Formats: sequence, C-alpha cells, structure tokens
Amino acid sequence: MPIRLGELAAQFDCELIGDPDVTIDNVAGLQNAGPASLSFLSNPRFREQLAATGAAAVVLRAEDVDGSPTASLVSDNPYADYARMAGVIHPPPGFAAGIDTSAVISPTAEISPTAHIAANVSIGERSTIGANVYVGPGTVIGPDCNIADDCRLIANVTLVRDVRLGLRGILHPGVVIGADGFGNAMTPAGWIKVPQLGGVRIGDDVEIGANTTVDCGAIEDTVIEDGVRIDNLCMIAHNAHIGAHTAMAAMSGIAGSTTIGKRCLFAGHSGAVGHVNICDDVVVSGKAVISKDITEPGVYAGSFTAEPAREWSRKVARFRRLDQLVDRVRKLEKSGK
Amino acid sequence: MPIRLGELAAQFDCELIGDPDVTIDNVAGLQNAGPASLSFLSNPRFREQLAATGAAAVVLRAEDVDGSPTASLVSDNPYADYARMAGVIHPPPGFAAGIDTSAVISPTAEISPTAHIAANVSIGERSTIGANVYVGPGTVIGPDCNIADDCRLIANVTLVRDVRLGLRGILHPGVVIGADGFGNAMTPAGWIKVPQLGGVRIGDDVEIGANTTVDCGAIEDTVIEDGVRIDNLCMIAHNAHIGAHTAMAAMSGIAGSTTIGKRCLFAGHSGAVGHVNICDDVVVSGKAVISKDITEPGVYAGSFTAEPAREWSRKVARFRRLDQLVDRVRKLEKSGK
Amino acid sequence: MPIRLGELAAQFDCELIGDPDVTIDNVAGLQNAGPASLSFLSNPRFREQLAATGAAAVVLRAEDVDGSPTASLVSDNPYADYARMAGVIHPPPGFAAGIDTSAVISPTAEISPTAHIAANVSIGERSTIGANVYVGPGTVIGPDCNIADDCRLIANVTLVRDVRLGLRGILHPGVVIGADGFGNAMTPAGWIKVPQLGGVRIGDDVEIGANTTVDCGAIEDTVIEDGVRIDNLCMIAHNAHIGAHTAMAAMSGIAGSTTIGKRCLFAGHSGAVGHVNICDDVVVSGKAVISKDITEPGVYAGSFTAEPAREWSRKVARFRRLDQLVDRVRKLEKSGK
Repeated sequence: MPIRLGELAAQFDCELIGDPDVTIDNVAGLQNAGPASLSFLSNPRFREQLAATGAAAVVLRAEDVDGSPTASLVSDNPYADYARMAGVIHPPPGFAAGIDTSAVISPTAEISPTAHIAANVSIGERSTIGANVYVGPGTVIGPDCNIADDCRLIANVTLVRDVRLGLRGILHPGVVIGADGFGNAMTPAGWIKVPQLGGVRIGDDVEIGANTTVDCGAIEDTVIEDGVRIDNLCMIAHNAHIGAHTAMAAMSGIAGSTTIGKRCLFAGHSGAVGHVNICDDVVVSGKAVISKDITEPGVYAGSFTAEPAREWSRKVARFRRLDQLVDRVRKLEKSGK
Repeated sequence: MPIRLGELAAQFDCELIGDPDVTIDNVAGLQNAGPASLSFLSNPRFREQLAATGAAAVVLRAEDVDGSPTASLVSDNPYADYARMAGVIHPPPGFAAGIDTSAVISPTAEISPTAHIAANVSIGERSTIGANVYVGPGTVIGPDCNIADDCRLIANVTLVRDVRLGLRGILHPGVVIGADGFGNAMTPAGWIKVPQLGGVRIGDDVEIGANTTVDCGAIEDTVIEDGVRIDNLCMIAHNAHIGAHTAMAAMSGIAGSTTIGKRCLFAGHSGAVGHVNICDDVVVSGKAVISKDITEPGVYAGSFTAEPAREWSRKVARFRRLDQLVDRVRKLEKSGK
Repeated sequence: MPIRLGELAAQFDCELIGDPDVTIDNVAGLQNAGPASLSFLSNPRFREQLAATGAAAVVLRAEDVDGSPTASLVSDNPYADYARMAGVIHPPPGFAAGIDTSAVISPTAEISPTAHIAANVSIGERSTIGANVYVGPGTVIGPDCNIADDCRLIANVTLVRDVRLGLRGILHPGVVIGADGFGNAMTPAGWIKVPQLGGVRIGDDVEIGANTTVDCGAIEDTVIEDGVRIDNLCMIAHNAHIGAHTAMAAMSGIAGSTTIGKRCLFAGHSGAVGHVNICDDVVVSGKAVISKDITEPGVYAGSFTAEPAREWSRKVARFRRLDQLVDRVRKLEKSGK
C-alpha cells in the first residue's frame, strides 16, 4: 500500500528529515532499495551499505542521520519501527469470510461468520473459531479447541484436542499442538502408556513456527503465556510452562514439567531438561542445555564452536588425557617437596 | 468413568488401605487432587505433596503408606499402576465405525468395517486397514501398507508406501513413515539419487511421536520392533533397526544402518552415527552421540551442561590452550631432571 | 523391469566380466542377493560379503574383480553406477495425468495436463504446475508458486506462497517451504513481528527430506541452488543461501542470512549460526556448529563422541578444574626459579 513519508512519520511518531511528499510503495534492504523503497539501519555493521543506498528513506537512529544519503525516519528502535511500517506498506493478504465446501465441520462446532475455513479442513466437536480467524488448507482441529479472534493457522496445522489459542495467534504449517506427551511407565513386560489427559493453553500474540510440536499435559495443561515466539522444529513437552515474551530459536527443546520465566531467549538447538525452573531473563546460548534450576538472570552456555578438525582432534586428545596430565603435575609437586 | 476404590484395587491387584466404597471419577496431581480424585506418588521428592494432598486415594509404595493422609492403593510400581488405572477412569474417546464421505479410498484397498476413516483421508492401492483402527483426519496412506488391528493414526500422518504397522500402534500427527532415505552417490556432475526400494516394518505396541520421521530402507526394510516408544521430532534413518522396548526422547536421531538393542534409552537430542551396533540395555545421555559399536550395557555420555557464560568461556579458553599447558608441564619435568 | 547384463553394461558403459545373457530383475545387498539380483561393492569393508554373495552380478571396482564369485560390472564409481542401474531395474512408479475430484484448485492456477494432482490437494491463486509433476495427497500449494516440470511432491507437503521449485525437484512428506522466518523486534511491550516478505527460490534437481522446513526470506528470497540434497528435519532459515550440490544430513540447521558454498557437507545435527559465510567444499562434522566465516575448504569439527558415563564424568570434572591445574603449574614454575 503506497504511503507518503510524512504520513509514515506521523503515524509512527518518528522525526522525518526529508521530503514528506515522497511516496513509499515497498520495503527493501539497503543494497537493493530503489526510489520508492523504505529501508532501515539497525546493526551498525551495515553503515557502509547506508552510505550507498538508493532507498527513498531509511529508518535509523539519530546518530546515523549524518551518514545517510537520503531521507531519514529517526527512531530509538529502528528495527521495531521498520517492522511496524513494513506491516502498513505490505499488509498481510486479506481473505474472504466463509467455509470452503470441502471442509468437514462438526455440527457442534461454532464458527464465526467472519472466519475463513479453507479447503480440506476438518473441525471437531464443540470447537469454536473466533472472528476473523484464518484456518488454512489441510488444517485439522480436533474436539474441544477454542481459537480466539484474529488467529491465523496457515496450513496443515494439527490441534489434537483441548487446545486453547489466544488472540492473534499465528501457527505455521506442520505445527502440532496437543499430541500426547511422552509418558511411559516401565514394567517387566515393557512400557505402559500413561494416559495424557491435560490440554494446552496458549496466551495472546503467540507465534509458533513450522513443524514445531507442543504436547498436551499429562494431567494439568501445558502452558504458553502471552507474546511467546517459537521458531521452527522446536519441541515443548508435556506440562512445560513458557513465560511471557520468551523466544526460542529453531530446534530448541524443553523437556517435561520445566518452567521457563518471562523474556528468556533460547538460541538454536538449545534446551532444558525436565523438571527444572528457569527464572526470568535468562539467555541460553546455541546448543546449550540447562540441566538444573536457574535463579539468576544472565547468559548461560555449554557448547563449543567448530574449528578445523585437525586442531579440534588434538584438543580432544588432550582433553581425554587430562587425568595423566594431572598425575604428572602431582608428581612434580611431590618431587619439589 | 466413575469407579469404586474397591473395584480398582481388585482389578489391579493392589492392597487398599481405606474405604472401598469411595468413588473415583478423575485423576489429578497430588497438589490439585479433590475428593473424587486418584493421584500417585512415585518419585520420593514429591513426598511433601503427599502429606498435603486432598485426593480420595493415592497409588504409592508400601513405605509411603504412613505418610498419606488419605486412602492408599499399595503398589510395587505406582507409576505403572496409576497409568493402568487412569486408562480405566479416563478411557480414550471412542469412535464410530465408517468412512467419511470426504475420504478418497483406492478400490483395491481393504478397510475393516469396524475401522474409522476420518475426513480428508486418502488410502492407496492394495493397502489394508484392520479392525478397530482409527485413521484420523488428513492422514495419507500410500500403496501397499498394512495397518493391523487397534491402531490409531491421530491426524495428518503420512505413510508413504510399503509400511507394515503392528497391533495397537499409535502414530501422532505429522509422523512420516516410509519416505525415501538419504541415499546419494557423488559424481563429478553432482549427486545421483540412489533408489530407496525397501519398506518399513513396525512391530506391535509401538508409539511414535508428532513430526517424527522413519525412512524406508534402501534395499531391505527399516525395522522397529515391538514395544518401542519414540518421542516427537526424532529421525530414524534408512535400514536402522530399533530393538524391542527401546525408548527415544525428543529430537533423537539414529543414522542409517545402525542397529540398536532391546530396552535401550536415548535421552533428548541424542543419537548414533550410521553403521554401528549398540547392544541391549544401553542408556545414552542427553545430546550424546554414539560413534562406534557398544558391546557393554551401561550409561554413555558425551555432552556438557550449561553454566554461566563467563565461566564457560574461561573453561573453553583453558581447553583451547591445553597444548601450551602440556608444554609447560613437560618443561618442568625436564628442568627437574 | 528385467534387463540383460549385457544391456546394462552397454547402457552404463561398464566392462562386463561374465555372461551378457543373464537377466537381472531386482537389486539386493550382497548378503541377500539371489540368482537374478544385481548387487554392488563400494566400501571395501564389505569385501567378505562379496566372496559369499549369491548375486547374478556385482558392480565393483577393477581391483575387486578377482574377489568376486559371480559376474562383474566394472566401474570407477560403483555406488553411482549401481544407483543408475537400480533406477532402470526398479523405475519409480508411474502415475496417471489428471486432477482428483477432491482437489481444490484456484481458477487462476495453471496446471499442466500431464500433471497428477492427488486427493485433497489445494492449489492457490496464480500458481503454476509444470509437465509430469506429481502433487501427492494432502499437499497445500499456496498462491504464486511455480513448480517446474518433473517435480514430485510426495504427500502432505506445504508451500506457503511465492515458492519457485526447479526441474525434477523432490519434496518429501511434511516439508514446509516458505513459512515466515523468525523475525521479531523487541520493544518494551514485547515482540513485534517483522513482516516476512521474500519468497523461496529453489534450483533444479533439489531433494528435500521429510518434515524439513525452509523459511521465506525477510525481504529478498531464501535461495537453494541446483543439486542440493537436504535430509529430514532440517531447518533452513530466512535468507540462507545454500550453494549447489551441498548436502545436509538430518537435523542440521542453518540460521538466517548465512551463505554456504558449493559441495559442502553437513553431518547430522550440525549447523551454522546466522550471518556467516562458508566457502565451497567445507565439511562440517556431526553436531558441530560453524560460528564464523570459513574461507578455507576442509573439515571442521567441534563435538565429542559418547563414552561410558563414568569416564566422561571424570573428564568433565577435570575440565571444570582446569583453572586450578593451571594455578598449580604456575606455582611449580615459580618455585623452580
């Protein structure tokens, strides 16, 4: 949607340095931006790209105005303001209300007349779909689910049963919510399945990435609070509790009954074992695994980064012989006496 | 389903200490249990919760009877007996036999009249569906698959072709079984696909978690024996062979042609490289990777747990300078001569 | 498809040592091969199996001819030639052109008359499906996608929008391409979603494994070049760029805006952090994570393999006390002066 720079500046309360009558009709990276493009500079390491940009305007911090060859929209948080403006310039595609004739809806389900139910969807008994909800093709919503207003289930999502999704939730394709947790009791004859009877309760403004799974609770519910962001291929096990505004990057896994505080960040391939409590504002580095309660906010790490294999192998060999090294030091200490 | 305590005790051969006429109609955790709730105590660290529980009865070991404020069902394996009782109190939802009109079934497929084929399912040529099988919405069953009696394919499951699933199997949403293994031969012109011609053979009483994948064999079949339990987002590569009653937690991966014994346990994010043999009764810790044959039962480990990043970084720096430390010790040894 | 040995040798330009009139009608491993089976020997560690094989013929290197008890097809690259021959002996199943009546196709989509559109597929606005394309059951193709000739989308695949797939692509079940990348800007009120506006551009001859996800670009496209092979449950984040003929084993993850060269190999559970550049011909070992630019081809590693837990724990304890060991060495050095 084309918009004048002056209008953007007013709408998002940014100082505009430049011609308010220039029209923006797309967003672009600094290097590929054209005369109707809005771009942004958030990370200082791209300052060189700013100097050469062909953008119509750039959202940036006050300190970067002098380095810009074009109009500036001055912001304390250029990435967030860019995100908001991009949402105005490129609004998400609309959809028509109504139910595709190929969808299979339980007679006891309640579907808002403003919802869109796409092709080959099925919706189970007693489930409710709120206003302006988009249920994309191939999605399966089992019984006793409640989808609040303005949610978008993109495609091929599965909500097994008893899933409550708050306002404005976004579930990407392949997401599975409410499948049985991994509850097994060992007996001499083999595993016995422990019935998984809880549901899943998800707050408002939660986004869950493609092929991520969130299991139902064993007895009580699995809980994801407001504003949580979960990337692709993550695993949230039964009775985990994820605090508000926590974000988890791809392939992170939280084991059963673990409680995570608010505003935590999990980097890729990281996780936490079961039955631990992690306080607010904890950052977990890539591939690190939290194995006990964390009571102090801060950054936690526990993995190595890759290096040339020959060097790595030598270090590993040294590591494997640490016992001998300690013995040699002990011997030296004794001989010194 | 409401049931008298006396009846529960008799059915599961537990000693009852308390009034046999109390009626149970739900299960609950010790902390949330009410006057019609059954709860359990298996892990001793929840003994404090036992003392304060409002449950009607608790399944517990003989040694915990004295600590219970309510009726006791005494068991050598409280978790397993709780699981069995929970299955009686909360039986899985039933389903009506029949084929939804939206399902697309090959004329050469054979469907038991007691099976339920849900909305938007498709079933391929020559596949057979046994008695009391539940095939949930959106599931795709390709050609030449055999689903034995009493299986449940929850929703959006995909069996590509030539998959045999034993009795009482449970496949959670997003499971993909029988997709091509990762077989590629390098040539100067790039990769050549190696045809993946085997099937997948799965025993009885196997449960596979959401979005887990089990590839077909390259020539012979991939095999999963009876009673195996696999959690979400795991990967079983072509021609892996998983022994009976082995359990794998979320995000575990077994590479191609690896054979795993019976009753093994893989913790989260763990795995094994290709072409190794792992004996019975091996436990693999979280994030650990088995890289060679294992012939001795026991616990195997190979990962670090997270700690404050500053401390971790210092240790990593020491690790990276181990060579220098060894040199210094060598020098000390020489100077001491 | 049965074929004479002489014909196979001629078609693939291999020297045949043996009777050209023997007919092959299946492929098999050396140990299970029968009198009409073709087998192969590529890895020297299976030479013992060669000596005892019952195969009609074996594809092998010249140096192994003498060890073969049966006909030999001599090849410099036995695995690749076996793969090609297997494709002739066991051609992939054919399919009938046409659109299943249960499929839901946008009136603005263009479907080649030679394509197969299976049950419960949906295809969005302006998308195009090329000649001889197979779109398997339950697949969702959103708007503005282009599928080139001879692609196979096996089943339950999701292309969200604006995905271009080159010639002969193979997408296994559960693959999700073009879902929103993980773009979030922090504000005091919580995360703001950064619109993900780019598409995904995939070259020719690309194969992507079950339940793998490839996100759309934030502004520009995510790119996968020709001949790339990606295994199951991998994650390719927004604006990653994967060079031609690179192969990634299961559970690998490439974070946002990372560029990977040609002919790289990523082992299982490996990956790269965001915004790094990796040159051509880099091999990343299992579980290793590339965390900075790589400019030299070669093998990179960074993980430990599992060992008995008691031994591992002792090493970890030593590692955690490296500081003290260094102090002791320093003290020895001082006392020696």
